[in-house]
Amino acid sequence: MPAFPGMISRSDIAAAAARIEGYVRHTPVVCLAAADLGLGIQMTLKLELLQHAGSFKPRGAFNRLLSSNLPPAGVIAASGGNHGAAVAYAARALGAEAEIFVPALTPAMKVARIASYGARVVQTGATYAEALTASQERQAATGALEVHAYDHPDVLAGQGTVGREFEQDAPGLTHVLVATGGGGLIGGIATWYAGSAQVISVEPEACPALHDALRAGRPVESPVGGLAADSLGARQVGGLMFPIAKAHVAAAVLVPDDAIAAAQRLIWDRLRLVAEPGGATALAALLSGAFRPPEGARVGVLVCGANTDPAKVVAA
Amino acid sequence: MPAFPGMISRSDIAAAAARIEGYVRHTPVVCLAAADLGLGIQMTLKLELLQHAGSFKPRGAFNRLLSSNLPPAGVIAASGGNHGAAVAYAARALGAEAEIFVPALTPAMKVARIASYGARVVQTGATYAEALTASQERQAATGALEVHAYDHPDVLAGQGTVGREFEQDAPGLTHVLVATGGGGLIGGIATWYAGSAQVISVEPEACPALHDALRAGRPVESPVGGLAADSLGARQVGGLMFPIAKAHVAAAVLVPDDAIAAAQRLIWDRLRLVAEPGGATALAALLSGAFRPPEGARVGVLVCGANTDPAKVVAA
Repeated sequence: MPAFPGMISRSDIAAAAARIEGYVRHTPVVCLAAADLGLGIQMTLKLELLQHAGSFKPRGAFNRLLSSNLPPAGVIAASGGNHGAAVAYAARALGAEAEIFVPALTPAMKVARIASYGARVVQTGATYAEALTASQERQAATGALEVHAYDHPDVLAGQGTVGREFEQDAPGLTHVLVATGGGGLIGGIATWYAGSAQVISVEPEACPALHDALRAGRPVESPVGGLAADSLGARQVGGLMFPIAKAHVAAAVLVPDDAIAAAQRLIWDRLRLVAEPGGATALAALLSGAFRPPEGARVGVLVCGANTDPAKVVAA
Repeated sequence: MPAFPGMISRSDIAAAAARIEGYVRHTPVVCLAAADLGLGIQMTLKLELLQHAGSFKPRGAFNRLLSSNLPPAGVIAASGGNHGAAVAYAARALGAEAEIFVPALTPAMKVARIASYGARVVQTGATYAEALTASQERQAATGALEVHAYDHPDVLAGQGTVGREFEQDAPGLTHVLVATGGGGLIGGIATWYAGSAQVISVEPEACPALHDALRAGRPVESPVGGLAADSLGARQVGGLMFPIAKAHVAAAVLVPDDAIAAAQRLIWDRLRLVAEPGGATALAALLSGAFRPPEGARVGVLVCGANTDPAKVVAA
């Protein structure tokens, strides 16, 4: 029995996993020896950047769309880019129209990716929050199904399937590091683990929405900027995820942009993987020392997105 | 009991796996639905491109080095690039000096990678075969341990551990597609499967060494050219692998360079992985139709190397 309306449970996540099976990829994990990244920390990476559309976002998008009656106007979403790509991908797979609102800061390659899935893309406003407002005005006119990027139970439950797979494939983790934007991903994952592993939120110093919310005791408006703003740049965390975070997120740490860029370079150099800034942010907490695992910890790190120009990673 | 001197067995591969454990990564597999690549073929990819030094080569290199007494002069190898990087990586890990001979066609990024592991790099000759001759003359002078890129039982057994892991993580495959250069990788993998799955060799039309050898009934000299020459450009296949191929390689198909480039683009577009031309060659056989799996086949595809400039993949 959920503690309050909209709160999700492990069984919602298990149901979501069954619902979206076949639509999303079960992404692999890879174990890194302590010496691999030069950090002296053994860890297991979950390579969610290999998901359809280049990030974890299709999980929540498919779960939302498959749980809804799709109106003739199709679906509508606002996004920094990855959620929009996922909604466009899922809508195409399910035969629905999609309209995606993205802000000015969304990189051209993400806009192109969204369009490549046949969606109509509207680029408006400076940040995600402004694109969201514009999309909601449009939704009122069209009657399309709004697919919120994080603050909806179906989206949270869909993203929680990342945690479920991670636990299946890497049982016994003591700490799981997850990048936080609006909080849908970590809200789902923290619900899944529910304290059985310490779920650590990692945000850029320039996008500290969950860090600030936990300090304030409620979701508050935070700055949006820096390298990972297009994927982690929610103005504030979702109302649904916040009580989950209070209950089940063990710590919310911040990392500087240079640690994010260093993590991207390291992932390319040592693993030949291209992670976008938001995708490398969780690992950056180990590089910067923002999170130091205790002796004997079994650390899991989620690499959650790849939608960037590889030339930027390699040359950075 | 091996059928002839130098022939390896499954137990040699199991022994190699135990020997190199902790030195190499157990690389993950990912299952792709029939629609994922637009080919209507469900398949399992083994992501060996995530191996140390960016290709499968450290498996054979570590098995060779760990099976030998390392002389004061260290180790010496000739390579199109990936084997050299692997030997340099393994030598550094084991505290030995390494000298690596590469031909003119070796890309600058591979030369830089070899040097980054502290090896001395000598770039000489037009192709791998000429660099090999130069390295053998040098070896005679220094007494360093020669680490052949493919034609040595320890190297074959090391590369065979790829097959062992693939079978562990994706049991029941009926067909396994493997790119062939000098034949160390497919020799090891075909030894492991030994007919329990059909192992299919895939070569570029411009580097047809195994295809030509199987037609001729013996290793013969073949052209070396095209996109993947730096990784698959052996002048002829190894004498040790050839009887294995006759016994356990079900087919040796050829693919044009444009199918290889298309496979690289597809792997980036759908999976966000950067594969070098040789790393995408096995998949190219499904794109070009050079190999058409029969109804009910369970297809495994090895993605075996990532050492290329991502900008080339994305822009191609």
